Amino acid sequence: MGRPRLRDLGITVGQLPPGPLNAITDVAGVRVGHATVIHDTPSVARTGVTAIWPGGDDSWERAVFAGYHSFNGNGEMTGTIWIEEQGLLASPFCITNTHAVGVVRDALVAYAVEHKVPMEWHLPVTAETYDGWLSDAESFPVTPAHAFAALDAAASGPVAEGNVGGGTGMICHAFKGGIGTASRVVKTAGETFTVGALVQANYGDRALFRVDGVPVGREIGPDVVPHHRDLATPGGSIIVILATDAPLLPIQCKRLARRATTGLAWVGGIGSNGSGDIFLAFATGNRVARGVKIAAVRMIAPDQITPLFQAAAEATEEAILNAVVAAETMTGFKGHSVHALPHDRLCAAMRKYGRLK
Amino acid sequence: MGRPRLRDLGITVGQLPPGPLNAITDVAGVRVGHATVIHDTPSVARTGVTAIWPGGDDSWERAVFAGYHSFNGNGEMTGTIWIEEQGLLASPFCITNTHAVGVVRDALVAYAVEHKVPMEWHLPVTAETYDGWLSDAESFPVTPAHAFAALDAAASGPVAEGNVGGGTGMICHAFKGGIGTASRVVKTAGETFTVGALVQANYGDRALFRVDGVPVGREIGPDVVPHHRDLATPGGSIIVILATDAPLLPIQCKRLARRATTGLAWVGGIGSNGSGDIFLAFATGNRVARGVKIAAVRMIAPDQITPLFQAAAEATEEAILNAVVAAETMTGFKGHSVHALPHDRLCAAMRKYGRLK
Amino acid sequence: MGRPRLRDLGITVGQLPPGPLNAITDVAGVRVGHATVIHDTPSVARTGVTAIWPGGDDSWERAVFAGYHSFNGNGEMTGTIWIEEQGLLASPFCITNTHAVGVVRDALVAYAVEHKVPMEWHLPVTAETYDGWLSDAESFPVTPAHAFAALDAAASGPVAEGNVGGGTGMICHAFKGGIGTASRVVKTAGETFTVGALVQANYGDRALFRVDGVPVGREIGPDVVPHHRDLATPGGSIIVILATDAPLLPIQCKRLARRATTGLAWVGGIGSNGSGDIFLAFATGNRVARGVKIAAVRMIAPDQITPLFQAAAEATEEAILNAVVAAETMTGFKGHSVHALPHDRLCAAMRKYGRLK
Amino acid sequence: MGRPRLRDLGITVGQLPPGPLNAITDVAGVRVGHATVIHDTPSVARTGVTAIWPGGDDSWERAVFAGYHSFNGNGEMTGTIWIEEQGLLASPFCITNTHAVGVVRDALVAYAVEHKVPMEWHLPVTAETYDGWLSDAESFPVTPAHAFAALDAAASGPVAEGNVGGGTGMICHAFKGGIGTASRVVKTAGETFTVGALVQANYGDRALFRVDGVPVGREIGPDVVPHHRDLATPGGSIIVILATDAPLLPIQCKRLARRATTGLAWVGGIGSNGSGDIFLAFATGNRVARGVKIAAVRMIAPDQITPLFQAAAEATEEAILNAVVAAETMTGFKGHSVHALPHDRLCAAMRKYGRLK
Repeated sequence: MGRPRLRDLGITVGQLPPGPLNAITDVAGVRVGHATVIHDTPSVARTGVTAIWPGGDDSWERAVFAGYHSFNGNGEMTGTIWIEEQGLLASPFCITNTHAVGVVRDALVAYAVEHKVPMEWHLPVTAETYDGWLSDAESFPVTPAHAFAALDAAASGPVAEGNVGGGTGMICHAFKGGIGTASRVVKTAGETFTVGALVQANYGDRALFRVDGVPVGREIGPDVVPHHRDLATPGGSIIVILATDAPLLPIQCKRLARRATTGLAWVGGIGSNGSGDIFLAFATGNRVARGVKIAAVRMIAPDQITPLFQAAAEATEEAILNAVVAAETMTGFKGHSVHALPHDRLCAAMRKYGRLK
Repeated sequence: MGRPRLRDLGITVGQLPPGPLNAITDVAGVRVGHATVIHDTPSVARTGVTAIWPGGDDSWERAVFAGYHSFNGNGEMTGTIWIEEQGLLASPFCITNTHAVGVVRDALVAYAVEHKVPMEWHLPVTAETYDGWLSDAESFPVTPAHAFAALDAAASGPVAEGNVGGGTGMICHAFKGGIGTASRVVKTAGETFTVGALVQANYGDRALFRVDGVPVGREIGPDVVPHHRDLATPGGSIIVILATDAPLLPIQCKRLARRATTGLAWVGGIGSNGSGDIFLAFATGNRVARGVKIAAVRMIAPDQITPLFQAAAEATEEAILNAVVAAETMTGFKGHSVHALPHDRLCAAMRKYGRLK
Repeated sequence: MGRPRLRDLGITVGQLPPGPLNAITDVAGVRVGHATVIHDTPSVARTGVTAIWPGGDDSWERAVFAGYHSFNGNGEMTGTIWIEEQGLLASPFCITNTHAVGVVRDALVAYAVEHKVPMEWHLPVTAETYDGWLSDAESFPVTPAHAFAALDAAASGPVAEGNVGGGTGMICHAFKGGIGTASRVVKTAGETFTVGALVQANYGDRALFRVDGVPVGREIGPDVVPHHRDLATPGGSIIVILATDAPLLPIQCKRLARRATTGLAWVGGIGSNGSGDIFLAFATGNRVARGVKIAAVRMIAPDQITPLFQAAAEATEEAILNAVVAAETMTGFKGHSVHALPHDRLCAAMRKYGRLK
Repeated sequence: MGRPRLRDLGITVGQLPPGPLNAITDVAGVRVGHATVIHDTPSVARTGVTAIWPGGDDSWERAVFAGYHSFNGNGEMTGTIWIEEQGLLASPFCITNTHAVGVVRDALVAYAVEHKVPMEWHLPVTAETYDGWLSDAESFPVTPAHAFAALDAAASGPVAEGNVGGGTGMICHAFKGGIGTASRVVKTAGETFTVGALVQANYGDRALFRVDGVPVGREIGPDVVPHHRDLATPGGSIIVILATDAPLLPIQCKRLARRATTGLAWVGGIGSNGSGDIFLAFATGNRVARGVKIAAVRMIAPDQITPLFQAAAEATEEAILNAVVAAETMTGFKGHSVHALPHDRLCAAMRKYGRLK
């Protein structure tokens, strides 16, 4: 994590304060782990797996509530039919590349079996974005061992960003993308809650890229930083994971997930046809223990929820920007290169539009 | 209620026991009221309004959780976008004829205003089925006063069935239809819960009509009881209201609502294109008081919920059959007649197929 | 239309060119009409009805495809259950205030009856936002005659904006809001298509208001232009109508509708809990005549659709800004005043952030 | 296929005529293939893969329209987020056991890569039901080779039923279940269309099992045919695949999929909490070739579609019954046995209730 984050450059987006780590791990119990897969033989791989534990050690024993939203569904997130039905998320889950969804999904089953989770069957969540420009996706470089490694590596504390884990080979607004995270702290309903976001950012046109409203993508044109590819119909995708310790019901998690759309829009995502823009939100403010027949839970009143929505939008926005700021130029499959967003150019654009001194 | 109900004929459907009234009002706090509008001048009206209070006197003050499902959406139920978003139902609501949805919906606003409900705006629920065969729907015979009357008439206790309230002019499987109700009592999660159904039944082909699996509609053909109309593409609709005192979250209310499909299928509803088959479920097992910032609620565990699903299916099935058994032959607009299901023929068919001694 | 529009101030948002009128009526066949209801006795009314004909004279005879999306469902749009089921919109429709949804909805039925539309029943679309701050909504000032007037007034050509029709009493980002419109022209799939938006804008916090990324709402604080109200949980809503002549299938109309979220986010809408942010998109590129058994239609390929998405986002963004720019300061119910966005202050803010010379 | 099918026993359900094969393959172009995995070492496997090609050889080149519905989502069907977004199905797909979803899903990607399908990324459909009672699911016996074998074995013509392919180890209403298929032919909109169903049936309580309305499950109690297991909360699932050659749009495919609920209800499925009842419908009546920018397609008018709905319900009903009739008693993992439905007892029950001479 030698590269600075957005705020290290003096740039602040949004109005709400971040948590201590400005990361999804500001939500107590959330753990993140990466397995980064980079090799040039036998195939060129720039890929990996990012694992998230929603509720610490007892993620299987004490489910959290969850909901998802697909802003544009040219992507995959397994396990969502079950989440839509029951509103519960009762296991760690992973993000990886498109063609590794299956191996990682089954690895989550195997991991549960190995850890003797007392459930007959598993319907785990695995999401994806496509890294085939930098990585030889058709060589299927991700193995169950990578998923296990990401799951075992998961920890609280700071989260590595940029070219790591599932984000290793990703591209965002025609700059190098990857994993990013951020958080917000809000007071509402008489309590203080945290909302954290983690993104695997792999979407977007250069021309639409904005930072706090400044048209940075237009300021840093292909003459300054070359596009990686001449695309008529740009693809790519973004997975957004939102976590909060607020006591949201499943229907409220779904509402929260939908607000990732707002943060995505602020950076310049419009849900292009080729993009799988799929958002999962979970809330640790209630835990539902396996075997309990009637659970006592709390629900934040709808008229108290708006600050959490704003927090979700802001955390998503900043997580994407952190992904792009952290990512470094990468060369991979077929010699393709994707350039990092040059920090000096970013700061120059912000200054030009009155946002940095 | 001079006409017998299904069980009065010795016919029992389903496996679970009904509540004391075998009606939606077996769920404590639920009230039902009808305003029946029948006149021949200035226009021929065979219509009305049925009002339901989900939670007694404090239906506005202490919301219940709710969810809806549209099996076939050629119909209207206002207020559902709000229910889908927040999962709360915080007012009485009505069922009427298709062309009176607006007047009744606004009457619910006016009723709330008149009763000084301290909410700035209202998004009330009003659902409909079409009675234009027996009633001159285009004369718009329903007025706000009818809605007020139904709301004021609402009571606990037995519920009038057949040609009453919103069900006055309805037609079901080419017999006279209308309002019907039923309930089931189940033990699960260590407690005892009631599920009640109320239907406004106005759908269906004669040939598909079944009672406990017996093809009664084929046994009582148009040679025995004439069809009211020669229909290439039969229209009609059914509104199903499900109530339970179980502690369901909104997402679980939606699941319950979807199970009305099963009960409807058992009687012979297939979701014809012209049918608005829309189901609303609410649960009084949690009440959310206005002004509470964080509500303490209970959630039945998903693995305890199946008996409630079976109860919803069975109550829906029997409510439809009660509607048809209670309804009486009616003549109305343009001299159209719709015949009641003859009870002796029904019993004969049940005997023929080994269901009645 | 004495007040200028956004572009008249020298401010341009988005990258795509507008149509000749920069209005939803750039889509051939689309007509818009307003009935504005302003009076101080017997009650203080600042309200109205806006009517839209999707397909000219034969809006009833030749349906268009349609789809809707609810970004935050604290609002009402009738007729959506039917649109979700069949994907067809076969009548003119209206936008009004919250408590007039019923009267206007039934007026659409009556209007169809009066015009001898040969359909047995009608499930018309009526949407709303709440104007109770400036208008005595509980006096129910809208009548069927207002709906008829708006329907009859509908025309192609320029569209009046600001304090007109359904938008008369609306408030947006704590400035005076109302009706706004805009359009975009795109080339894709070898053809040229238009996407138009019309909004009834009544949502939003001042602090989140942005114009082309510039934080105008923060620049024009309550010290400069007073807030109309001290709101802990701001309400309000926005209805967005999107029209296009592209050959979209119903599922594609739904996708288009969802993109209004992006344009809304660009201006500063986050889907606050109290906001009914409901979007309806229709496509005139296919017309389905009543009575045809199998219709020949065209479908734009998904990989050609992204420019339409961008157009929908941009048109929505500019339509909102046009609503705010056109609206004029209004005083109404209980003496409440809501201030117009001062154009000079807007331009000053744009200059400060490098967007205007 | 030595075992008879339902009609071979003299039992007919439904009112519409079946196609020549009474199978999903009556829809031209549809191919089905099975890979059955049965071994006792190194682990006890009673599992497999069933592959379906929606459109013959050019299933990848010329997409069909598709839609899905989840009646109860305790299951997995990958690829549905993409289908919900675009309404297109452009590849063969598979059904297998729960814990093999990943390996089979990735095998579909690998199969496409191997066959040089010119698409950058793949989001294939793989669905599942759980066979862990008869098969050691946690030994992960399914390999990519099995998926390839099922895909390569796919053919038009009769479809093997019962203990084959993905259905090998399945259990239905506490009898042995598995794969079943059926079809219906309907005339509507001036043309003749076929609707076919294929099910992987693994759900249901004995007591709810009905054949043409006859309570066969109650007639053949555990004293006659032992239950395989003492279940408080029965699990299991059913995947229903519906195919038609009618020209349905995506939104209409979704409607068709929802009608599988009706057929399922007729046999006794109530969507138990533990059941993943997920239905996919596709229509070959339109084919959308890759690379076409604007496709000419046909749409059946909504008012002509009801016969297809009835066909979908009937085909689903009979496909389930064919699965149960075809399945044979199986012993597997841990010595568990699941008994076939005894045909003589079935016929006796039908005779008792007046359905068979």
